[in-house]
Amino acid sequence: MTTQERAPTVRASQISEQLLQELREVLGSSSVLTGAAIEERTTADWSEAEARLPIAVLLPRTPEQVAGALRVCNAHRARLVVQGGLTGLAGGANPQEGEIALSLSRMDAIEDLDPVGGTALVQAGVTLEKLQDAVAERGWLFPLDLGARGSCQLGGNAATNAGGNRVLRYGMMRNLVLGLEAALPDGTLLTMLDRVIKNNAGFDLKQLFIGTEGSLGVITRLSLALVPKPSSQMTVLCAVGSFDAALSLLREAKARLPGLSAFELMWRDFFDASLAALGKTSPFREQRPLYVLIETFAASLELGTGAMEAFLENAMEREIVQDAIVAQSVAQAQQLWSYREGVSELLSLCKPCAAFDVSVATPRMDDLVDDLRSRLGALFPQQQHLFFGHLGDGNLHLISGPFASDSDLEHAESLVYEAVGRFDGSISAEHGVGTIKRPFLHHSRSQEEVALMRQLKAMLDPHRILNRDRVFA
Amino acid sequence: MTTQERAPTVRASQISEQLLQELREVLGSSSVLTGAAIEERTTADWSEAEARLPIAVLLPRTPEQVAGALRVCNAHRARLVVQGGLTGLAGGANPQEGEIALSLSRMDAIEDLDPVGGTALVQAGVTLEKLQDAVAERGWLFPLDLGARGSCQLGGNAATNAGGNRVLRYGMMRNLVLGLEAALPDGTLLTMLDRVIKNNAGFDLKQLFIGTEGSLGVITRLSLALVPKPSSQMTVLCAVGSFDAALSLLREAKARLPGLSAFELMWRDFFDASLAALGKTSPFREQRPLYVLIETFAASLELGTGAMEAFLENAMEREIVQDAIVAQSVAQAQQLWSYREGVSELLSLCKPCAAFDVSVATPRMDDLVDDLRSRLGALFPQQQHLFFGHLGDGNLHLISGPFASDSDLEHAESLVYEAVGRFDGSISAEHGVGTIKRPFLHHSRSQEEVALMRQLKAMLDPHRILNRDRVFA
Repeated sequence: MTTQERAPTVRASQISEQLLQELREVLGSSSVLTGAAIEERTTADWSEAEARLPIAVLLPRTPEQVAGALRVCNAHRARLVVQGGLTGLAGGANPQEGEIALSLSRMDAIEDLDPVGGTALVQAGVTLEKLQDAVAERGWLFPLDLGARGSCQLGGNAATNAGGNRVLRYGMMRNLVLGLEAALPDGTLLTMLDRVIKNNAGFDLKQLFIGTEGSLGVITRLSLALVPKPSSQMTVLCAVGSFDAALSLLREAKARLPGLSAFELMWRDFFDASLAALGKTSPFREQRPLYVLIETFAASLELGTGAMEAFLENAMEREIVQDAIVAQSVAQAQQLWSYREGVSELLSLCKPCAAFDVSVATPRMDDLVDDLRSRLGALFPQQQHLFFGHLGDGNLHLISGPFASDSDLEHAESLVYEAVGRFDGSISAEHGVGTIKRPFLHHSRSQEEVALMRQLKAMLDPHRILNRDRVFA
Repeated sequence: MTTQERAPTVRASQISEQLLQELREVLGSSSVLTGAAIEERTTADWSEAEARLPIAVLLPRTPEQVAGALRVCNAHRARLVVQGGLTGLAGGANPQEGEIALSLSRMDAIEDLDPVGGTALVQAGVTLEKLQDAVAERGWLFPLDLGARGSCQLGGNAATNAGGNRVLRYGMMRNLVLGLEAALPDGTLLTMLDRVIKNNAGFDLKQLFIGTEGSLGVITRLSLALVPKPSSQMTVLCAVGSFDAALSLLREAKARLPGLSAFELMWRDFFDASLAALGKTSPFREQRPLYVLIETFAASLELGTGAMEAFLENAMEREIVQDAIVAQSVAQAQQLWSYREGVSELLSLCKPCAAFDVSVATPRMDDLVDDLRSRLGALFPQQQHLFFGHLGDGNLHLISGPFASDSDLEHAESLVYEAVGRFDGSISAEHGVGTIKRPFLHHSRSQEEVALMRQLKAMLDPHRILNRDRVFA
């Protein structure tokens, strides 16, 4: 997310009366908003990227209505932007000039929970938290979890292949989607709501809609995998002496800790800045180069405690870990997590700044950090450059700033993405491309890859009515 | 796999001199086999489906050679069939009339093992077992495992999205592929060898090549995820009183057993027939309606044993489990697995018979079995109909036969796939479609889905040179 593209939301252009009429026939008048009714709504995501007012807002209630609206718009060559919970950080859901917003918000029914097989059938507009709560009551866990849980919608989670806090254990959203239903730009409704993990009956077409950011179709319903709710959660904060020690610790944790769900790395300057932003003091007596937050979900308290004690004992004996704090209560666990989540406070204090979400093979992460630290430090010695990330997933975050000008900030962005490309990394680990990272896609994807993405787009959306110019132009 | 399509391998047609010449220029003469050199090779898979002799066999040594061979064939509109380890059960790798076989066998180098990040970079022709062994030496596990491990190749595992024995814990092959390289029919080489799990920089194009059975491109290299080698393995055989009890046990096992990797269900008649085929007697004093084989991979012996003991005690107290045998040695574990793997003996005794690989939502599996048992029993009262499967994955296997005629066998196949469709299941859980299941695809996939598969094929392979008429005609 960056701040340089912030622009005032501007007035909507006109929409043709004929198109409106046809959309009302498909959706009903109360599901087609125009004029003042639009202005009352939030129509931009969390990225602060440029957003226009849409020329209309569509609020379908059924998959068939979504397909019908697409069919009408396709015939009129009218452009649509798809909107879920509007919590994206890449600008993809922000309306561009002349676009109609298609919001999934009214499709918020949990259609079925199967407490035997452990699957859920939901409409795309159900929020992540609503599903989490509904399945928790029945002893299950829907394992995807991210800060935006109260607002983000499952359709958006799938369309952007959301990551979050527990990827190490449960994978990205892609791994949790058993089946889906999607409306294509031509109005075809593809219903592929499998309830099983194993289905090799032909191409796995759902993959076309997961992580393609609404470019190829609109996800209307999802069939999702649940896991039994773990009964015990453990949180530990470790201080380690070097990046190599952190890598050894990660490997040990993967091997020895059943239910390892998080392995969050914080470089010392991030940790100290986070403490300062929160107005807290360090829980450790001595400063160390790196801090690691480890979380496990165990089947029982005995198992979780026993495994964690043995793991820490071994790691301290071998001097991989120098200090460790084991949370003894939910409040203490939240306290330990707060150092990692101090990022929100840091961001609000550091404006305008750039926040990065990149990934690189774990053994190269430290070299990438060194490279970035020295280049950014040379060019912007007055700014903070704070590193942290999900080490287990190769996901590195960086907050840089505050910058004196937009051009400085853009300079820093170019520098970071160029380095990520040089290290064979990804310019977007989990947030997606949207409009904000579009200029940098070539650092992570070859011309041939982008050409194939365009071919897919042309095949499914020849008139480019859907999320035009997101991901690539 | 079925036996009715068994046909003698027939002689090769002619190949044009000009095409041969160009292929030799790209690959070198020693990598282009014709005439008698072909007849000495195995060119058919394990399915016993019809196979012709290919008109040439190509044995490229590099990804660039694969791409070059495709470019030449595309220009000549010459058809190719891609061959890995030839262990498929759906006939997809069997040459059809006039096809050239492209074998990945000579591309068998493990190019890199990263013992820090836990990833492997391999050429497509490396066998599964070769990789398993290479990483085991370094303390890692490549978790995919199937009976064909000694012959099957990783490229084929990816192209068919292989499943196998540990899907419950580690997912299908799709989940283990971090990145891949594929040669397209037009000769483009797409190199997308990511080493991280998180990469949302645009569409995840590797999904086009995983599980599409070589229809859209030839996988040349793979970047794969490894996991730390678990230090302790536990195997238990349980006798249960009902299907509902088996479902409860599955849920308990998922919740309580860290590292649950297999949950294999056997109906009593399968279990008894397997024992008889193996010449063994039951390890249980009493007969029970169902048997469940459970396997866990634990981080340590203490953890594994402790969790298993608590789990079994609880299950027996609640009368979910009626009897249980815990393997006390590797030999005993193999003994318990042998009852499940008696399927090979059963198949060799039951000829000609039909073996099915389908999937259905777990809560509906028992009803599907009842439905099939009564229909098959009414039509074929003299035949055996034996059910078993990976309950954790919704994967059901059935062996039916021996049949008196090919038309009886075909009748049984139609009956089974029609029922699977009625139960919203998949006609192919893990083996793929190939040529054998092509006539039944409509039971699991809608016209719209098949139309979209065809569109993808037409986009990437407009002259249909690659694996023509596999999956769909």
